[in-house]
Amino acid sequence: VIALDWGLSSFRAFRLDAAGTIVAQRSAPAGVLTIADGAFEATLSAQLGDWLDDAHDAGPIVAAGMIGSRQGWVEAPYVPCPAGVADLASHLTRHALARAGAIWFVPGVRWSDAQAIDVMRGEETQIVGALAARGIGDALLCLPGTHSKWAIASGGRITRFRTYMTGELFALLRRHSILARLMPEDVVQDHDDAAAFSAGIARAAEPGGLLHHLFSARTAGLFDRIAAPALASYLSGLVIGDEIASALATAPRDLTLLLVGAPALCARYESALAQRGIAADMLPETVGAHGLHAIARAARLIDD
Amino acid sequence: VIALDWGLSSFRAFRLDAAGTIVAQRSAPAGVLTIADGAFEATLSAQLGDWLDDAHDAGPIVAAGMIGSRQGWVEAPYVPCPAGVADLASHLTRHALARAGAIWFVPGVRWSDAQAIDVMRGEETQIVGALAARGIGDALLCLPGTHSKWAIASGGRITRFRTYMTGELFALLRRHSILARLMPEDVVQDHDDAAAFSAGIARAAEPGGLLHHLFSARTAGLFDRIAAPALASYLSGLVIGDEIASALATAPRDLTLLLVGAPALCARYESALAQRGIAADMLPETVGAHGLHAIARAARLIDD
Repeated sequence: VIALDWGLSSFRAFRLDAAGTIVAQRSAPAGVLTIADGAFEATLSAQLGDWLDDAHDAGPIVAAGMIGSRQGWVEAPYVPCPAGVADLASHLTRHALARAGAIWFVPGVRWSDAQAIDVMRGEETQIVGALAARGIGDALLCLPGTHSKWAIASGGRITRFRTYMTGELFALLRRHSILARLMPEDVVQDHDDAAAFSAGIARAAEPGGLLHHLFSARTAGLFDRIAAPALASYLSGLVIGDEIASALATAPRDLTLLLVGAPALCARYESALAQRGIAADMLPETVGAHGLHAIARAARLIDD
Repeated sequence: VIALDWGLSSFRAFRLDAAGTIVAQRSAPAGVLTIADGAFEATLSAQLGDWLDDAHDAGPIVAAGMIGSRQGWVEAPYVPCPAGVADLASHLTRHALARAGAIWFVPGVRWSDAQAIDVMRGEETQIVGALAARGIGDALLCLPGTHSKWAIASGGRITRFRTYMTGELFALLRRHSILARLMPEDVVQDHDDAAAFSAGIARAAEPGGLLHHLFSARTAGLFDRIAAPALASYLSGLVIGDEIASALATAPRDLTLLLVGAPALCARYESALAQRGIAADMLPETVGAHGLHAIARAARLIDD
């Protein structure tokens, strides 16, 4: 299988053998947003030409992420919750390639009721991959990021999930708010202050609410309670702490917590959770490749 | 008394007689941020030359707001809570004018404990003015804005307050976030949709947390549950609803609620509060002029 995790800003490709072992991988900054005039197949060929030339051995191409959205190559409609490997596999969208063969797009997942709707695209594949990697069907999963997802899985299917705009809000506040002046780029640059992050997590757990706690980053800066180079870490603690507190307030407490994503970001979440006495099991984003392999097998694109 | 409410972006002047009645008022976009090279006295003369020429009748000049901050003309240090008219009056900062006479700056107010610090500058004067206008000493006060303040007054003094970055966060999300694309300026322009605002208030009261509810503005837009022209009103409801829910969660419930500020914004808060079954008594920002008059009298700058 050629498994593609193709998002708005990044392109990652994995080659897996029939047993699901990753035998090769590549990545490039060739995200959906960087591609003009719908030149998706040309991008695919440019990145993976040698793999594709070897088509018989390569097996089917399966893709997850925003490449399957309205902004991407072909829109693969959302499937509703509950959604597991079989549900995703039975709703793949096939697109014939000009060069011969085809690419299969994994659908996103939608949760909705009369009041609310939530959606994910790409994370569903990481979730089924993470469940498969741990050999469990029931879990609480956190996928941190620009738009973090918290999902409940039951019997291997996603039953409920919520999105939190944590990473985006951090970036907005960091760059454009009144707080930005207190943390000039040249001072804060790549600085990661564990004590300030922890102070932000602790503050987020106190009464007051996020809109109030955010202002504490300003007063902590103005009154020198937190040094300028550490303020961004404090702010990160505030927003991540608020996300975790909100997510745990609506989640069942007896489930194993899987933390899936970029290792550095997951480590921040792990330390924030540990501060609340909660253990998490971390898995890297590459579990998405295993999710794609499992979906391809369930769709009988490859033999069992 | 010449009473000045001089903030970062606006300048408002009131002339009050000895009894505290406003006999004249003026405003200009001559905020602190618009004044170069510290030309504060020149700005004052340009705006109020005729009043100042009539110095004997004019009486003392008293100013509140960011003009008394480090960014302003002269820094008037913060006084700690509890703070009332007498506390503010005894900590005025006097500055001699080049043209003869003097201007008195009202201090801001600070609340702090070992963990947290909060500050206000300008709102303290509106608060004491609002209490005086209603003839009460005990109240819960909400002053909505870019950085909304909620304060508890007891015996005429501010005992505790919290700042919420509501207006600033709304503007950031409205202009710079992924939500901005869903609400183009030409579509939303000055549109105020009461039903969408109310839906945002209702959503904010549900479990999930602000970071999650914000994403509902995106899905509501993408799935056409809320029309594009109404999305900004929905977003406004989400952030104002979150502020109100957070503020009420930490406030005593038996106090009269005074809502002080620009009438249009206060009307939004009043309707949001009414949706939660809470009545509020609205007062315009001009109560600050009465606050300044009371402070000037307590400081014996004018006779009783």
